[in-house]
Amino acid sequence: MMTEPVNLQKTLDSFTELWSPRIVAQFNDYDVRVAKFHGEYVWHAHQDTDELFLVVAGRLVIHLRENGVERFVTLQTGDTYVVPRGMEHKPVSDAESHILMVEPTGTLTVGDTHEEIPDHVDATTGHHIG
Amino acid sequence: MMTEPVNLQKTLDSFTELWSPRIVAQFNDYDVRVAKFHGEYVWHAHQDTDELFLVVAGRLVIHLRENGVERFVTLQTGDTYVVPRGMEHKPVSDAESHILMVEPTGTLTVGDTHEEIPDHVDATTGHHIG
Repeated sequence: MMTEPVNLQKTLDSFTELWSPRIVAQFNDYDVRVAKFHGEYVWHAHQDTDELFLVVAGRLVIHLRENGVERFVTLQTGDTYVVPRGMEHKPVSDAESHILMVEPTGTLTVGDTHEEIPDHVDATTGHHIG
Repeated sequence: MMTEPVNLQKTLDSFTELWSPRIVAQFNDYDVRVAKFHGEYVWHAHQDTDELFLVVAGRLVIHLRENGVERFVTLQTGDTYVVPRGMEHKPVSDAESHILMVEPTGTLTVGDTHEEIPDHVDATTGHHIG
């Protein structure tokens, strides 16, 4: 699919939509996606896969809920974090952040189980670029 | 394993060895590794897995050999590139570069098939941090 290098920043500069990941690379049966986050996402969980986050720019708070107990982790630029499969989580960014995610191809952004999806959230398996 | 975020730059600042990846995150059965490259690596191939490269800092040239024909791709900071499974490749960095790789846990840095391994190359499945 991509036979030439794909630049993260150029890809991020090519769109403005929030919560709408672009697929920058595919390897084995996984996608590498970049997205712009700003505001609150929806609570959701991926039952069958962990999800890798890497903050390319900005700050990301990931709220986590397990057995009814909520906590959160704060990711700064350059931080990686893995949300384990089955864990309910809700990303929040006070200001626009740029996030890289790695997950199996076909993984839906809103997970398998989620709360009601508001209009500003793009329920997608990622958009191909150029 | 990592229940708190892991910062790429802090990890890179914690070691000086070249061609010696540190595991910063694990998800599903994959590792995220960061390494410092400088000089020439060895020609090698991973028969059963694609390999994702992301240049965190610096510049990386990946030489590729297929059916005896050589070519190369040049990756700048922020570039992603996937070397397909079975493809012979040889990373080269004229100056020190910082590289993130994603590959299945247990994947050997020098691949399944490789030329003779010089002393400066650490044949490893990645080192755990902290």
